[in-house]
Amino acid sequence: MKIALLGHGTVGQGVDRIISERVGGVEVVRILELPDRLTDPRMTSSFEDIANDPEIALVVECMGGLEPAHGFILRALAAGKSVVTSNKAVVAAYFREFAAAAAAGGAGLFIEATCGGGIPWIASIRKVRRIDDVRSFSGIMNGTTNYIVDAMSKNGADFDETLLRAQELGYAERDPSADIDGIDVKNKTIIAVGVAFDAACTAELPVTGIRNLTRVDLERFRAHGRTVKLLGRGVQGGGRYAAAVEPVALSRHTLEANVPANFNLMSLDATTVGPLKFYGQGAGMLPTGNAMVQDVLDATAGVRPTYDLSRGLAWDPSLLTGDYVFRTMASVPHAGAWEGDEGSKIVRGVTAVEARSLFERACESDPSTFMAALAKEGL
Amino acid sequence: MKIALLGHGTVGQGVDRIISERVGGVEVVRILELPDRLTDPRMTSSFEDIANDPEIALVVECMGGLEPAHGFILRALAAGKSVVTSNKAVVAAYFREFAAAAAAGGAGLFIEATCGGGIPWIASIRKVRRIDDVRSFSGIMNGTTNYIVDAMSKNGADFDETLLRAQELGYAERDPSADIDGIDVKNKTIIAVGVAFDAACTAELPVTGIRNLTRVDLERFRAHGRTVKLLGRGVQGGGRYAAAVEPVALSRHTLEANVPANFNLMSLDATTVGPLKFYGQGAGMLPTGNAMVQDVLDATAGVRPTYDLSRGLAWDPSLLTGDYVFRTMASVPHAGAWEGDEGSKIVRGVTAVEARSLFERACESDPSTFMAALAKEGL
Repeated sequence: MKIALLGHGTVGQGVDRIISERVGGVEVVRILELPDRLTDPRMTSSFEDIANDPEIALVVECMGGLEPAHGFILRALAAGKSVVTSNKAVVAAYFREFAAAAAAGGAGLFIEATCGGGIPWIASIRKVRRIDDVRSFSGIMNGTTNYIVDAMSKNGADFDETLLRAQELGYAERDPSADIDGIDVKNKTIIAVGVAFDAACTAELPVTGIRNLTRVDLERFRAHGRTVKLLGRGVQGGGRYAAAVEPVALSRHTLEANVPANFNLMSLDATTVGPLKFYGQGAGMLPTGNAMVQDVLDATAGVRPTYDLSRGLAWDPSLLTGDYVFRTMASVPHAGAWEGDEGSKIVRGVTAVEARSLFERACESDPSTFMAALAKEGL
Repeated sequence: MKIALLGHGTVGQGVDRIISERVGGVEVVRILELPDRLTDPRMTSSFEDIANDPEIALVVECMGGLEPAHGFILRALAAGKSVVTSNKAVVAAYFREFAAAAAAGGAGLFIEATCGGGIPWIASIRKVRRIDDVRSFSGIMNGTTNYIVDAMSKNGADFDETLLRAQELGYAERDPSADIDGIDVKNKTIIAVGVAFDAACTAELPVTGIRNLTRVDLERFRAHGRTVKLLGRGVQGGGRYAAAVEPVALSRHTLEANVPANFNLMSLDATTVGPLKFYGQGAGMLPTGNAMVQDVLDATAGVRPTYDLSRGLAWDPSLLTGDYVFRTMASVPHAGAWEGDEGSKIVRGVTAVEARSLFERACESDPSTFMAALAKEGL
C-alpha cells in the first residue's frame, strides 16, 4: 500500500522510521513539508501532489493544529483515501464532519493515536462495543499533568518548579496551558464520547485543570488517604450523557492513584465484560508512532473504521454529580469543612457543571482557588 | 455462521446467552452434552454429529479438562473448523499440536478466553507483535489468589479463613489447589510464552503458590513498604527465554500491588510501544463468555489466528535472576537477614529455578516455609 505523510516532525519521523524498519508491504511515497524543509526526494510542499495521486490509498496526518489539517483530512476522505491522524484537536473539533466524509467516501477514519499514545484505547472501545454498551469511561489522559502531580507528591515540590523540570525533560511544552488547564484532556474526552457513546459532544464541557494545585493541597489529600489526578470522564444512560474534565481526589489504593511519571491509564465500564483498564505511554515519538502504524496495518488489512455521531443523546449534567472539595479564601455557598478539616470546604451533591461555576466564582476573589471532585467508593 | 458448543455449563450458557441476545449472523445449531442432560433440541451427546456437519464452521469448546477436549479440538481443526476455547489446561498441554493442526486444516485457533477472562490479553500481544518484539510479560493471572491476598491484607485475616470465604463467594473451587499452588497461573504463563515469544514452553517451570502465606508474612512485607502478589512471568532475549510462577513482593505504590478483589492485571514490555498493562475481570461467566464471543466475532470477520511454536528458543533460567525472601525455621544456605529483619532470610542473585529448589529443601524441615521474589525497582 502506498501512503503519504502530512508533516515530518517528531511523530512523522517516528512513523516513517517504524514503517521502514518493521513493516513490509507499506511504502511512504510522499511527505508534505514546508517549502524550506524539502530534504528528501519524497517531499513536496503541495497537497495537490498527494490528493491527485490515485495510487496513494492512505494519508497519515502528523501536522497538528486545526488548519490546514482540517481541510486536508476532509479532502482526502472525500477522495476515498483513508486517513490516520494523531491530531486530537482537529478530531475533537470536526469529528462528526470527518465521520460523515469518511462514510460518504468509503474511506476509513483512524484515530487511535489521538488518545493515549500507544495504548490501544480507541480500538478497545470499538471492540467492546461489538458486544457491550459502554456505560462510562474515565482516564488519566495527559502525561504532562500526571508527571507534575506524581513528582510533586514524591518530592514534596511545588507546582512551578515541577513544571519547569517537566519542561526541561521535554514532558511539557513551553506554553503548558493546553496540558495544565485541561484542554488536551477535553479534546480526548470529546473523542471518547464519540467513540464510546456515538454522540457528537456539542455541549460546553466543564473543564478545570491543575494550574492551582499546591504541595499543601497534596498534603491535605494525603492526610485524607487520597491523591489528586486530572481525569476526563464520561457517562451515559437512558438516552442522556454527561462528561467533564477536572481534578479528582482518589483513594491512594486505586490503580489511578499509583500511575507514575508521564503514564496514562484509561478505563471503561461495559455491560458484560465489566470494568477494563489500559495503561501505557500516552505520548512520545515511538508510542504515538506505534499507534499510527497499527492503524496503517489495519488499513492494509482492509479495516475501515467508521463512526456515526448522529445519535441524539441529550446532555444531562446530573449524570455526573458528587461532592467537591475547595481550597479557597473565597466564600463558597453551602460549603462546610471537609471531615473536620478547616482548611478546606466541601460542597455536596452538585453536578460537575455547578462545581465549575462555583469554582469560577471563587476564583474571582481568590485566583489561587483549587477544586477537586471526591471520587466515590471504588474509584 | 453456524457454530457448535461443546459443553453447556456456566461458560457455555454464558456464550449461548450473549450470542442470542447481542450478536447477529451467528447461530448456535448444536450443543454437545452428556446423554442425561439433553434438555434442548440443539443438544446431542455425539461429537460425530458436529464433526460431520459441514455447515458448522466453528466449534466453541467449553468443557474443560484434558480429555476428551484435546481429541475433539484436534479433530475439529483437522476438519478445517475453527476452534474457540477457554480451556487453559488443554491449550497449555497441547499448544504446539493444536497450532500445527490449525495451520494444516486452514482453521483458526482462538484462545483469548484462556487467559484473563474478558481482558483482551492474547489479542493485545498479537497486535503488539505486528510491529514490536515482546521482551517480557508478567501478570496477576489468577483472581482467586488475588482475592485471598487482598482480603487477608485488608481484613488482617489468615489464609484458611479467607480461603473459606472465597469458596463461599464462589471465587475458589472446593479443591483450591490449582489456584493456590499456581497450576492455573502456570498454564496461562505457558500460553503467554507461546503467544509472546513463539516458543513451545517445554521446560519444567519453577512454580510456587501462596498456600503458605500468613497474615504475619503480609505484615512483614508491609513493614518493608511491599505487598505480595502471585505472578506469572516470562522474559526473552538473545534467542533464550525463561519463565516462572511465584509470589513476588512488590512496592505498595505499583499498579500490581493495588489490584483489588478477584481482578487480574497483565503486563508486557515491547520495543517501540514500551510497557502496556491490561486490567479487568479474569474469570466469571460473563467476562469469559464475552472473550469467547469476541473470538467468535473475529471468526465471522474472517480472522484466522495461527501460531508457529517451532521457534527453538533455548531455556535459560539466568534470565530470571533476583533476590528471594524466605520465612522458614529451616536453614537456607548463604541467607542473611532481610534489611535487619531477623524473622526473614534473604538470598541474593539466584535464579527462579534455584530459588524454587531452595524452597523445596526448606519445606522438607519446615513445611510452612513461605518464599517470595523481591521485585526490582519499577515493579
